[in-house]
Amino acid sequence: MEKYRVERDLIGEKEVPADAYYGIQTMRAKENFPITGYPPHQELIRAFGYVKKAAAMANRDVGALNPQIADAIVEAAEEVIEGKLNDHFIVDAIQGGAGTSFNMNANEVIANRAIEFLGGKKGEYLKVSPNTHVNMAQSTNDAFPTAIHISCLNLAKGLTQQLEDLIQALSEKEEEFDNVIKMGRTHLQDAVPIRLGQEFGAYRRVITRDLRRLSGSLSELYQINMGATAVGTGLNALPEYIQKVAKYLADITKLPFETAEDLVDATQNTDAYTELSSALKILAINLSKMANDLRLMSSGPRTGLNEINLPARQPGSSIMPGKVNPVMCEVINQISFQVIGNDHTISLASEAGQLELNVMEPVLVFNLLQSLSILQNGIKVFRQYTIEGLTANIEKCRDMVERSVGIITAINPHVGYETASRIAKEAIQTDRPVREICIERGILSEEELNEILDPKEMTNPGIAGAKFLYN
Amino acid sequence: MEKYRVERDLIGEKEVPADAYYGIQTMRAKENFPITGYPPHQELIRAFGYVKKAAAMANRDVGALNPQIADAIVEAAEEVIEGKLNDHFIVDAIQGGAGTSFNMNANEVIANRAIEFLGGKKGEYLKVSPNTHVNMAQSTNDAFPTAIHISCLNLAKGLTQQLEDLIQALSEKEEEFDNVIKMGRTHLQDAVPIRLGQEFGAYRRVITRDLRRLSGSLSELYQINMGATAVGTGLNALPEYIQKVAKYLADITKLPFETAEDLVDATQNTDAYTELSSALKILAINLSKMANDLRLMSSGPRTGLNEINLPARQPGSSIMPGKVNPVMCEVINQISFQVIGNDHTISLASEAGQLELNVMEPVLVFNLLQSLSILQNGIKVFRQYTIEGLTANIEKCRDMVERSVGIITAINPHVGYETASRIAKEAIQTDRPVREICIERGILSEEELNEILDPKEMTNPGIAGAKFLYN
Amino acid sequence: MEKYRVERDLIGEKEVPADAYYGIQTMRAKENFPITGYPPHQELIRAFGYVKKAAAMANRDVGALNPQIADAIVEAAEEVIEGKLNDHFIVDAIQGGAGTSFNMNANEVIANRAIEFLGGKKGEYLKVSPNTHVNMAQSTNDAFPTAIHISCLNLAKGLTQQLEDLIQALSEKEEEFDNVIKMGRTHLQDAVPIRLGQEFGAYRRVITRDLRRLSGSLSELYQINMGATAVGTGLNALPEYIQKVAKYLADITKLPFETAEDLVDATQNTDAYTELSSALKILAINLSKMANDLRLMSSGPRTGLNEINLPARQPGSSIMPGKVNPVMCEVINQISFQVIGNDHTISLASEAGQLELNVMEPVLVFNLLQSLSILQNGIKVFRQYTIEGLTANIEKCRDMVERSVGIITAINPHVGYETASRIAKEAIQTDRPVREICIERGILSEEELNEILDPKEMTNPGIAGAKFLYN
Amino acid sequence: MEKYRVERDLIGEKEVPADAYYGIQTMRAKENFPITGYPPHQELIRAFGYVKKAAAMANRDVGALNPQIADAIVEAAEEVIEGKLNDHFIVDAIQGGAGTSFNMNANEVIANRAIEFLGGKKGEYLKVSPNTHVNMAQSTNDAFPTAIHISCLNLAKGLTQQLEDLIQALSEKEEEFDNVIKMGRTHLQDAVPIRLGQEFGAYRRVITRDLRRLSGSLSELYQINMGATAVGTGLNALPEYIQKVAKYLADITKLPFETAEDLVDATQNTDAYTELSSALKILAINLSKMANDLRLMSSGPRTGLNEINLPARQPGSSIMPGKVNPVMCEVINQISFQVIGNDHTISLASEAGQLELNVMEPVLVFNLLQSLSILQNGIKVFRQYTIEGLTANIEKCRDMVERSVGIITAINPHVGYETASRIAKEAIQTDRPVREICIERGILSEEELNEILDPKEMTNPGIAGAKFLYN
Repeated sequence: MEKYRVERDLIGEKEVPADAYYGIQTMRAKENFPITGYPPHQELIRAFGYVKKAAAMANRDVGALNPQIADAIVEAAEEVIEGKLNDHFIVDAIQGGAGTSFNMNANEVIANRAIEFLGGKKGEYLKVSPNTHVNMAQSTNDAFPTAIHISCLNLAKGLTQQLEDLIQALSEKEEEFDNVIKMGRTHLQDAVPIRLGQEFGAYRRVITRDLRRLSGSLSELYQINMGATAVGTGLNALPEYIQKVAKYLADITKLPFETAEDLVDATQNTDAYTELSSALKILAINLSKMANDLRLMSSGPRTGLNEINLPARQPGSSIMPGKVNPVMCEVINQISFQVIGNDHTISLASEAGQLELNVMEPVLVFNLLQSLSILQNGIKVFRQYTIEGLTANIEKCRDMVERSVGIITAINPHVGYETASRIAKEAIQTDRPVREICIERGILSEEELNEILDPKEMTNPGIAGAKFLYN
Repeated sequence: MEKYRVERDLIGEKEVPADAYYGIQTMRAKENFPITGYPPHQELIRAFGYVKKAAAMANRDVGALNPQIADAIVEAAEEVIEGKLNDHFIVDAIQGGAGTSFNMNANEVIANRAIEFLGGKKGEYLKVSPNTHVNMAQSTNDAFPTAIHISCLNLAKGLTQQLEDLIQALSEKEEEFDNVIKMGRTHLQDAVPIRLGQEFGAYRRVITRDLRRLSGSLSELYQINMGATAVGTGLNALPEYIQKVAKYLADITKLPFETAEDLVDATQNTDAYTELSSALKILAINLSKMANDLRLMSSGPRTGLNEINLPARQPGSSIMPGKVNPVMCEVINQISFQVIGNDHTISLASEAGQLELNVMEPVLVFNLLQSLSILQNGIKVFRQYTIEGLTANIEKCRDMVERSVGIITAINPHVGYETASRIAKEAIQTDRPVREICIERGILSEEELNEILDPKEMTNPGIAGAKFLYN
Repeated sequence: MEKYRVERDLIGEKEVPADAYYGIQTMRAKENFPITGYPPHQELIRAFGYVKKAAAMANRDVGALNPQIADAIVEAAEEVIEGKLNDHFIVDAIQGGAGTSFNMNANEVIANRAIEFLGGKKGEYLKVSPNTHVNMAQSTNDAFPTAIHISCLNLAKGLTQQLEDLIQALSEKEEEFDNVIKMGRTHLQDAVPIRLGQEFGAYRRVITRDLRRLSGSLSELYQINMGATAVGTGLNALPEYIQKVAKYLADITKLPFETAEDLVDATQNTDAYTELSSALKILAINLSKMANDLRLMSSGPRTGLNEINLPARQPGSSIMPGKVNPVMCEVINQISFQVIGNDHTISLASEAGQLELNVMEPVLVFNLLQSLSILQNGIKVFRQYTIEGLTANIEKCRDMVERSVGIITAINPHVGYETASRIAKEAIQTDRPVREICIERGILSEEELNEILDPKEMTNPGIAGAKFLYN
Repeated sequence: MEKYRVERDLIGEKEVPADAYYGIQTMRAKENFPITGYPPHQELIRAFGYVKKAAAMANRDVGALNPQIADAIVEAAEEVIEGKLNDHFIVDAIQGGAGTSFNMNANEVIANRAIEFLGGKKGEYLKVSPNTHVNMAQSTNDAFPTAIHISCLNLAKGLTQQLEDLIQALSEKEEEFDNVIKMGRTHLQDAVPIRLGQEFGAYRRVITRDLRRLSGSLSELYQINMGATAVGTGLNALPEYIQKVAKYLADITKLPFETAEDLVDATQNTDAYTELSSALKILAINLSKMANDLRLMSSGPRTGLNEINLPARQPGSSIMPGKVNPVMCEVINQISFQVIGNDHTISLASEAGQLELNVMEPVLVFNLLQSLSILQNGIKVFRQYTIEGLTANIEKCRDMVERSVGIITAINPHVGYETASRIAKEAIQTDRPVREICIERGILSEEELNEILDPKEMTNPGIAGAKFLYN
């Protein structure tokens, strides 16, 4: 057998490895774009399989595509969906504009596999042509965005699941720590008491909103532009085909796709992606804040706050014996930084659209799929290895509350801010308890103070001992 | 009259200008934070007026605040709302954490004005205390975020109006230009025909989604944390007060505020702001893309595309006579860059929250209010001075379509991609019309070509002359 | 006297307030760009004064400008430099592309003032024309960039001074705290001892590098493009004029300006600004990290690390008496976030240059000058109000070292990492001192431990008791 | 043979594949951090080889490490440098803080390979311990940063070469196009003539500055912190070792490394990375601007500017026959967006350093090495496939100059800006040549106009026909 076959295109001819399902245009892309070394995201490859399968079925139904050819394309596309042809998707994640090379890589792989199903040999494009048949009534400019939508939505499913699990885990900690009284801090300075359970409740709530935002940001992705062809006008796409291809895609992906109302709009604008990326960025910001809090609260153990314990996952240091670090939190911080940076790249790419098309989609989708993947991956291990096994140092927490000056705040409503300030200042300067000074000065009785300074009471709305109101 | 009065606080004493409504803490802030030179945004000042008024009314109702004092505070707060005391809000837009100085500036101004209403002199804080009375049952940590919500929502109203007007203006152009056939471009390269009205339709649709996103991003802002006090636990805030203050705020601002379900969450998390800022950022990206398109299409007049004309707003050059530049588009680009940069600052500030509070709110709100303001301002003049008077060079547009090679695409379904490619290549190399070559080669008859290459037809889905389908 | 005079330009005519030195083009800009409400930065106004003065002198010298007119322009420009005409610079900081309105505002103000010097009345542009005379041999595209360079360099002088003072203050603390042994922390977890002085030494060194970076980033700014006129080709600018204007500018600004080697390059590229902004961004990052450290180390006072004390600058809370917050550090964080966001805007603006010009310069310079100003302002008060008065809690620091497990690391070279790990684990689990366990197990003698665990020794390279080396 | 061996650490025990050179800590990292799926950058792996080799040699020399063990470590490290053990570096690019897992992966692989050299079996760590021997006198906190420096510098070499080649290619085009007169454009509007060679000269110059910036930004990287150990104090590192390890590293890498003056500083601060990343970001901005220009100038071919031709690299469209897109420029834009986003992530990571260490280094170095790699890769193909074969449409360029109104600018010095404006306005409104109107109005003679409007003359400083100067 020959090692190569020769293929031709507009530019000229080229040798293609004999056993490759891809063809000349993929070869050109490989040569032109040796950039990141990363292949297309696997979910993107699968998504192209869905697109090409649905298009072939729709083209067959409207009588534009010979049923035999259509069926061969469908069969080949299914192998793409199953991941069997992954090795033949070799174009770089960052490539020439608009993703033409992704699309042509898919067209060529599917055409050559379909040719085999029809009894031909790779490269016999008269049997099945990558452009005329596999890409029929399509352009990169509708096929690629549609594939992006599919891959984003499929990855978002996994992320959604991880967020739900995280919310559940936080909720359990919220309950578990409902009675752990600890010092609340603002500006990193001692403030007033709070319950550790309340803190986890706040984490739970913000992540719940993140889930709501993620879910909301997906809605535009259900609008696809199949049938838009080159610039959204639908040139070369029959109306019946447009209707059918969306229906087929919805059926085979089990995602509620429908044709966008305005295909010109749907072809040139990339706000659906920036909307999703923004939701991911906000999630990243919130996760990073939570990870920072956990790192602070678990700092020490002996010379930090030491309010909570994170499960030990690995020796923390190559030199300091016994050290255990909050590595799962740190990886969340880093994932967050990556996602925030990716959002930046996505914004730049989105702004760079021009007229009928945004050619910067390859870099955009590279970052978007990465963000979806690493968030999903990171949240899973963060929950499993940090949140679920997290414990509280209950005594340490209570102890700090009792030593604090911040509890003076509860005395305000009884004596006014100015008097309370003087007591606080004295407490700090003399390093004595607030309670002691209040009694010594005859400002409040021990009984009153017991009521006013009850730590648990302080963690809920209300004015303890609220008989004395200003008037 | 003395030029100064002396005031005291925890730190010591200080001279305050005799006629100043602000007091010692505002003076300290002025000294500590000579950063930007910008005062607080006027809408933020007004918002503090609303907050303090509602709080005084609620405190009065629950019996915590002497009605006489309450009424004086309400009256003073109303002057703040009306902008009468703006000159006394002197703390810098970027200041120490959490906005304590904003809140104390408001507390002091209102206290001193209220003291006057009660017949006292500025500085007689026994009559009305900035902390004990004006700030009663409040903390900076609930009063400031609530003020941020009010000011954002009020500015968002104006922005909403401008977006609606822009959508209307784009819609009118969409209709006006519905018959203007022009060359569609992808990769800045000639593609296939499109109608100018379709392009404006795409702009209208993306801005309509931006309006939807803006509107959606406001929903969290209706949740306020009044009553949270220092860390969200509600220490020193009676439950009845919490209920009433939200109700009063809703009444006097005519915004549907309600108390957040979880005040701890609402006090420490700033995702409502990042969510709003993200919506603004996406809007900015879309506006910038549109402005770029208009600049491209109006480029020339003689050595550019010259498809459209933007109204001349000012001489374009200090040296080149007769030059007119697309200045309104350029200002939109620049506003967009500012908003995108602001979103970055807001993200950084949001991520920097720690435990019970995000102290970075001053810089966050500075950027958020600026983004809201400049978008509103910019979109208004962009619409008035560019969109509404924009005209098309209809002949020029049609001319370019007819000279283009891109129309060859419509021939694809009739002859296949490969044959069409050869014709295209020849057309480009010989600089001859596609139509001529097709006829010469006997590929399609003149009659067929008339049908297939009808420019208007090409701008809608369908295959012109669709009798010949592949099979 | 009339309230208005009527002026005319290419677009039409317009009423200008009779006492305004600006003219019709400034009026148009005011109407077109009601964006931020901020006037041009004062240093930018001054810089235009320098530019116009130097240009008039050079034009006079080469015989292109009537000496009488030239002298009147010079005199008017001097008033601009002195700030006497600031109120007449009314165009918005964010405006139409390239800064034409800044330049024309300057041209008009100077023309009208010069007309008065020549005995005319405002608006009598036949005497002195804003374009023909004040802008002679100039374009916005060389005058504005040159003004940017001047204003950046002048602001950078102030920032340089503040950095030098900060370095000095850090250096004093480095010395003062040279003997304060404290626990070093990595991952916020107890690591091994360090001296507080070493920490301040590290701050000093990184800021010293920031000063070096700032200084290095200024070098390109000494290259100016006066004489480039519209696109850098120097059309309408005599070579002798080009030579002279740079020389005059250097003389009157006392900055070593010279004409850029390639004026086309210098007119279209904005890398000199991104280079400066990058240096500022790196400075901001480093300042923010330092501020974060200080906030951590001063956290508490009772429930935090409490290793250092920051001077109290203002009451920290409107509700919590006695609370003092690290407000000067927090303002540094916020300034840093602003500067980082500004760098983002600047990058966007820089990337948006097209062909012969970058029209996004107004928003670019708005952000760049703001970054320079707020860093200078913020660093000054940060040094004065936080660094200079910062004190250490020496006992607290030493105490934590002695309680820590991290000192076990010093035992490594004597017993190997694996044995040391077992001791550490036991120490943590039993809450006992490392030293005690070592002796109990007979691993090292008390004498040896005294030597090995000497805290001061541990803060310098070397292996205490280094007789036992592995072999 | 067993499929697994059992290893133990502080946390417990674990099965390790029998043929794996890595050990238990690598296994833990693999389990903890399934984030990106990307292994460490190959240059980072090599760099660890250099670090471990140099450390073993230095430890041997100072008598701390048994020479036999040292030699085995050196031999194993050499295999790492040669890439022979790449498959055993399996920890994720984004991982727990500080890169402990990178370092331990290296320590374990080298230990196990060294054990084999000493006749032992994998896992027999008494022979060679990953921590006690391979990591001797090291911490992740000095070994990892040093490895980062080495890998950055090695990648920067390749990027430097590509920049030099690009500069050369631009320089050749500058010369080749020196006589191609074309229309200069500002604001995308017709301005005044320029030469295509001048434009390429401007590109050459800005890239030359980028090369200078890159080179300057590397200087800090030659300072390494080997010997800093955990927090920079040098605990457990003998001064002679510190001296020797830097020297050995310099020798074997052929990079002029030296020990940082202050190891505490060098361990906690990451400004050397942000400095390098900033230089890359500025380069990216400039490349993107250049790519945008080339895309604009090559737009068309029939309905765009069509001033230049980019070599055709691949069919441009899956649907539009004959279309060729500027894919190499587009990939440069996308690389630039990626690098700018990466810089953002790097900035976030750098700001997140705390006290003695920046634990966010893994994500930082992931982005930094990616930026270095993709710039190098992208610039190479951009030069080869776009710059070197770029051609000019000389006639088209000249034609546009002659049709333009912008040439009127050259008439300014002769008639004043106001008169010139009137002529320009008439020319635009009547669509007639400037020259014609001037003659008709008797403003200038044909002879004068020939001199004044000579296109080539207009592209250099000077006033054509400069006899008439104002006076």
